[in-house]
Amino acid sequence: MSEKKFETLLVRVSKGVGVICLNRPTRFNAFDLKMYEEVIEALAWAASNPSINVAFLTGAGAYYSSGNDLTNFVKPFSEGPEAAKKMAKTSGDILLRFVNAFIRFPKVLVAAVNGPCLGIAVTTLGLCDIVYAAEKASFHTPFSALGQSPEGCSSYVFPKIMGPAKAHEVLYMGRKLTAQEAYERNLVTAVLPGDAEQFQKEALARTMQLAAFPPQGLVFTKQLIRSQEKATLEQVNLAEVKLLEERWVSPECIAAITNFMKQQQKKRTVKSKL
Amino acid sequence: MSEKKFETLLVRVSKGVGVICLNRPTRFNAFDLKMYEEVIEALAWAASNPSINVAFLTGAGAYYSSGNDLTNFVKPFSEGPEAAKKMAKTSGDILLRFVNAFIRFPKVLVAAVNGPCLGIAVTTLGLCDIVYAAEKASFHTPFSALGQSPEGCSSYVFPKIMGPAKAHEVLYMGRKLTAQEAYERNLVTAVLPGDAEQFQKEALARTMQLAAFPPQGLVFTKQLIRSQEKATLEQVNLAEVKLLEERWVSPECIAAITNFMKQQQKKRTVKSKL
Amino acid sequence: MSEKKFETLLVRVSKGVGVICLNRPTRFNAFDLKMYEEVIEALAWAASNPSINVAFLTGAGAYYSSGNDLTNFVKPFSEGPEAAKKMAKTSGDILLRFVNAFIRFPKVLVAAVNGPCLGIAVTTLGLCDIVYAAEKASFHTPFSALGQSPEGCSSYVFPKIMGPAKAHEVLYMGRKLTAQEAYERNLVTAVLPGDAEQFQKEALARTMQLAAFPPQGLVFTKQLIRSQEKATLEQVNLAEVKLLEERWVSPECIAAITNFMKQQQKKRTVKSKL
Repeated sequence: MSEKKFETLLVRVSKGVGVICLNRPTRFNAFDLKMYEEVIEALAWAASNPSINVAFLTGAGAYYSSGNDLTNFVKPFSEGPEAAKKMAKTSGDILLRFVNAFIRFPKVLVAAVNGPCLGIAVTTLGLCDIVYAAEKASFHTPFSALGQSPEGCSSYVFPKIMGPAKAHEVLYMGRKLTAQEAYERNLVTAVLPGDAEQFQKEALARTMQLAAFPPQGLVFTKQLIRSQEKATLEQVNLAEVKLLEERWVSPECIAAITNFMKQQQKKRTVKSKL
Repeated sequence: MSEKKFETLLVRVSKGVGVICLNRPTRFNAFDLKMYEEVIEALAWAASNPSINVAFLTGAGAYYSSGNDLTNFVKPFSEGPEAAKKMAKTSGDILLRFVNAFIRFPKVLVAAVNGPCLGIAVTTLGLCDIVYAAEKASFHTPFSALGQSPEGCSSYVFPKIMGPAKAHEVLYMGRKLTAQEAYERNLVTAVLPGDAEQFQKEALARTMQLAAFPPQGLVFTKQLIRSQEKATLEQVNLAEVKLLEERWVSPECIAAITNFMKQQQKKRTVKSKL
Repeated sequence: MSEKKFETLLVRVSKGVGVICLNRPTRFNAFDLKMYEEVIEALAWAASNPSINVAFLTGAGAYYSSGNDLTNFVKPFSEGPEAAKKMAKTSGDILLRFVNAFIRFPKVLVAAVNGPCLGIAVTTLGLCDIVYAAEKASFHTPFSALGQSPEGCSSYVFPKIMGPAKAHEVLYMGRKLTAQEAYERNLVTAVLPGDAEQFQKEALARTMQLAAFPPQGLVFTKQLIRSQEKATLEQVNLAEVKLLEERWVSPECIAAITNFMKQQQKKRTVKSKL
């Protein structure tokens, strides 16, 4: 039996492909602490499972993922500096391990971005090998507005992918990219047509074709390519996480996130009254 | 009072943005020794001024900048090898410090290229964070024709930005780029419409939006991104300057520059007779 | 007399350009051991010939080059593990020296891709300075299908050129690129119109213009640019060759190549019966 049970993920093996589907659709597949841990676990499982040649990451429902679940921060921020500090440390630890799981994944990793994609779900695409995007996918990293700084090695990888002038528009200015723009900026391998279901079917079919190639050739090629950047990526990950841990306890960042959460709350209240 | 007086620059602070405007329009904002020194000074001022979150570099008049003022070289070249050698050393020293001022600038740096742009004014764009271009902007690095070699870290940065095949066309062949081509080659973040005045207004408005984000987040993000390349960029700058100092005293380069200056002189004479 | 005789190449000097033309048109300019050796020799000759400022690489006939001549492998593979091992060592040694000859070439190197281009002929384009492509050129690296891994430093250079998401489609999935796609992915400097003859004429004319610039400026600029990556490229070359030597004696790779050669044989038999 090649399936494995998770709370926040749907996982299966099909024709050499290990499918990992983010499955918190009511929360737009936001990453709470549980989902961070389970993705780390699922990648370890895919790495060691001999019937998996290629891993395939996608999202259930309308979103690929809305990124870091900021509700993680609400309670600690309201409880004062000590609770905020503790939260920052916990979040930093898990983020470090989560991004390292992408950096160190030893097989080819395909992402199929079925819909909108935010924050950490965008930045880790730069650590995937092949990225398919649905026409309705979008890519948004609003770090600056929230007083935060980039993660997922995007501070290093995005300038290499897009060129600095266009990467900085994304990293500093929070420019939201359409699927076509993300393709033009080389974040995306190909934009595939069709609705969410057709998109995932086509992306998976292409991934199965890839998984049908001689598997050791793929694995050793991946390790060859990644070996050239691995040490640098691990250092960048560490530097990014250390900075974020400082940002998360800074008055500037706490004020920005708290203000953002209040506005979200208001929007929800207005909506529920309509 | 947040303004500062310069001979060759117009400088002011507005809504968190430190505006530095190259202001030798009758010389198409060419860099003489004075303007090199004053830009270094203005960047230091912007770095340390707490009311500046983002710096904004642009040009007065029709040009962004016509690059290194070759009239610097005319007198020493005519006076013989000793004077040429001394000029090469002086120019090298100032170029090294000028480019280091871009490499080490600790805040987000936006360039608004309002018109034609040559040589060192093109290459240092690769060290800016965001680059806006007017539709009439153009980008020209005629190093090879003048027997010179690239500066501003372009020998390292341009291949990373454009890919080597297209960067080398610029660096070896002196291919002049339109604003649209510079955008397609990722040297430029966005081409903004309108005449020079509308362009600068729109570029500044976008920069003010950026400067309104939590400022410490921007500064730490800039330092995170730059830290990954800083040591390499400083080494490249040094290697480029050392090579240029050798080029400037080579018979090949002296002949090419002298010949170019004569042709320019002729053109001016012809024009003034018409 | 500035010409030099080769078995598999046509070589001449014209207006500062050293033209090296792959000349096994009946084998679509596939690289047998002889042609590998002769290209190494021709590049050494062009490097040391003082009347050559720029080297120009192209192919005779319809193809630029069909890449590594797999008939090299047929006999050893049929003779058993010892012969295969010896063949892998010989092929690895020559590949290492061949790619190093591109890495270390001290003058500007222009490739004019006159038609289809496969494997090692594609990957070494990333080590050329300027790449012109005919409209009918195509670029194909079917490493994975043959159980092989990338060479020519493409595992390092292609992600830098195209961005990882698009480079991996080429390196893992063997996506075949048209000339226009190779241009969009920055592997190609420019696509030039016309038939094969017009294409080569225009590419050579542009190269002669380049070769007419002050030659020391070009040479020192090339050395400046290459010096920044040389050590890394040499390490990548070595790592790629070591992996390929292992791949070539793996049952997986031997089966894939043997199977491919049988299919090719069948196609030829069918064709010759028609």
